[in-house]
Amino acid sequence: MTATFRIAITPGEPAGIGPDLVIMAAQTAGEAQRVVISDPELLTSRARMLGLDLSIREFDPGLPPLPDPPGVLSVLPCPLRAPVRAGHLEPTNARHVLSMLEQAVDGCLDGRFAAMVTGPVHKGVINDAGIPFTGHTEFLAARSGAELPVMLLAAGDLRVALATTHLPLRAVSDAITGPLLEQTLRILDADLRRRFGIQAPRILVCGLNPHAGEGGHLGREEIEIITPALDRLRAQGLRLEGPLPADTLFTPRHLEHADAVLAMYHDQGLPVLKHAGFGRAVNITLGLPLIRTSVDHGTALDLAGTGRAEAGSLAQAEALAVALAAAQH
Amino acid sequence: MTATFRIAITPGEPAGIGPDLVIMAAQTAGEAQRVVISDPELLTSRARMLGLDLSIREFDPGLPPLPDPPGVLSVLPCPLRAPVRAGHLEPTNARHVLSMLEQAVDGCLDGRFAAMVTGPVHKGVINDAGIPFTGHTEFLAARSGAELPVMLLAAGDLRVALATTHLPLRAVSDAITGPLLEQTLRILDADLRRRFGIQAPRILVCGLNPHAGEGGHLGREEIEIITPALDRLRAQGLRLEGPLPADTLFTPRHLEHADAVLAMYHDQGLPVLKHAGFGRAVNITLGLPLIRTSVDHGTALDLAGTGRAEAGSLAQAEALAVALAAAQH
Repeated sequence: MTATFRIAITPGEPAGIGPDLVIMAAQTAGEAQRVVISDPELLTSRARMLGLDLSIREFDPGLPPLPDPPGVLSVLPCPLRAPVRAGHLEPTNARHVLSMLEQAVDGCLDGRFAAMVTGPVHKGVINDAGIPFTGHTEFLAARSGAELPVMLLAAGDLRVALATTHLPLRAVSDAITGPLLEQTLRILDADLRRRFGIQAPRILVCGLNPHAGEGGHLGREEIEIITPALDRLRAQGLRLEGPLPADTLFTPRHLEHADAVLAMYHDQGLPVLKHAGFGRAVNITLGLPLIRTSVDHGTALDLAGTGRAEAGSLAQAEALAVALAAAQH
Repeated sequence: MTATFRIAITPGEPAGIGPDLVIMAAQTAGEAQRVVISDPELLTSRARMLGLDLSIREFDPGLPPLPDPPGVLSVLPCPLRAPVRAGHLEPTNARHVLSMLEQAVDGCLDGRFAAMVTGPVHKGVINDAGIPFTGHTEFLAARSGAELPVMLLAAGDLRVALATTHLPLRAVSDAITGPLLEQTLRILDADLRRRFGIQAPRILVCGLNPHAGEGGHLGREEIEIITPALDRLRAQGLRLEGPLPADTLFTPRHLEHADAVLAMYHDQGLPVLKHAGFGRAVNITLGLPLIRTSVDHGTALDLAGTGRAEAGSLAQAEALAVALAAAQH
């Protein structure tokens, strides 16, 4: 089945494997039309390094949104600010990276694109360029006017959302508040219904502390913050279980009947998901007025231009973006 | 092969599934002699609830240390302080629980037992009895005069040690110090050699913050504390990789060539291990002058006396204790 809509793809950091992945993906036809927002010269020279065929067409929104044949990419030009050497970060190109994201968001909001798929960016080099940037998720939310983005990782049947994302560990406990949990869980519940078509999602919620605080002996946030928030949401009809100890929750017996997990912070939820699903994990941002999926890995600077990057996660991210977009049409 | 030494087994919380697991295990002969430190009447009545045969012999250190036949248990009596109802916690029995642990430690130190295997305890009820208790690991260390116990969980080929264990999450960052990491990693390295027979162990070390701090943008503990500690240890010959982002480290590509992982805190390392190995995960305490293994699960009060408890983890813990003890003989 071929979908007649367009998916924007941002390769992300130009010195990383993002351009490689896009070129590798282009070797087979997409289900929807791919529109890559990048510098055509970068793609051409990276394809040459990889020894892969690539023919570039400038994206024309006036033409019908049909998938391109293998080896062909529709590109919405987004010029580099400095030359790129594979593997070598260049802060001058941070603006190029953010510009491709802005164009993708704007195109989703004005209807040119049905969804956007993002390759990996390098937060450090963007910060080094003097631009405050804590991650794709937060950036896309600000650009699209979303109040609270919710990061969800999916691998197979396992879906893990995060209450906090890119915070130093010492800042996590104070960041977990009743209003944050309520808003996050409402978005997770709503988007599981709206985007994933799950009628009455069942969500497992992790505690913040080891053993979910063990009755207050290992921390009181479960008693004072998490449990009251879950009770308020249950009274509104949400199907929530928890707070549960993370190392109990992530066992087959508990996951079996759950549609998603809410972890309190990054390293409580993502190591399990990456372990279970590496190579097929996809990052989805919920709570946005658009569909955005992403690879689940970093820029892998050492692999850029070598042909040794694995394109599995981008393929999964694209497939999920197409499926979610198709469900809205 | 039958080993001619004794393994002490402590069922732990009497209202939980610990007694059930011991009785279930006794239905098949052990590789070494099991000496269960418990109240004989508790075991007899629990066996009746489970509909399992059980004949009890009082442990006699004068007899040869040979495995008992199926359905028979050697018991070192440790009287209950109050009657037990399966599933109902009773703080009065907290002293009973600690007494069984003390006898097991003392018997290991004086050579009566080659190792000890512990069932689950309930920290909350021990604390409710007015006794400060943060976990088996810390208690056994104090009793055996160990300076620093190191908690290691193993499931199949995956071994995960923890730099901090039962701390509220907000206390973790300040607990991660250079001296703690150095001492923990030295013990982990030494015990992987001494107990597990690994010549030059290769250890992967997690960062504390998400993305291992991403070059200081998400926390500075990696730069200021973890990396310098690893560098000092590398100069002493330890084979360490890290600090690595936890969600990168726990992928097959990284784990493949590693002998163990050091996670900075409980919920960074254990959810992955439990997910990967539930039903066969074993908890081992390193850094003690004795061999101690444990089940990896809790007291499961709701399952006590029902026959629905799973005895897999106790069986694995016993098998590992026997293997580690045999390696010392």
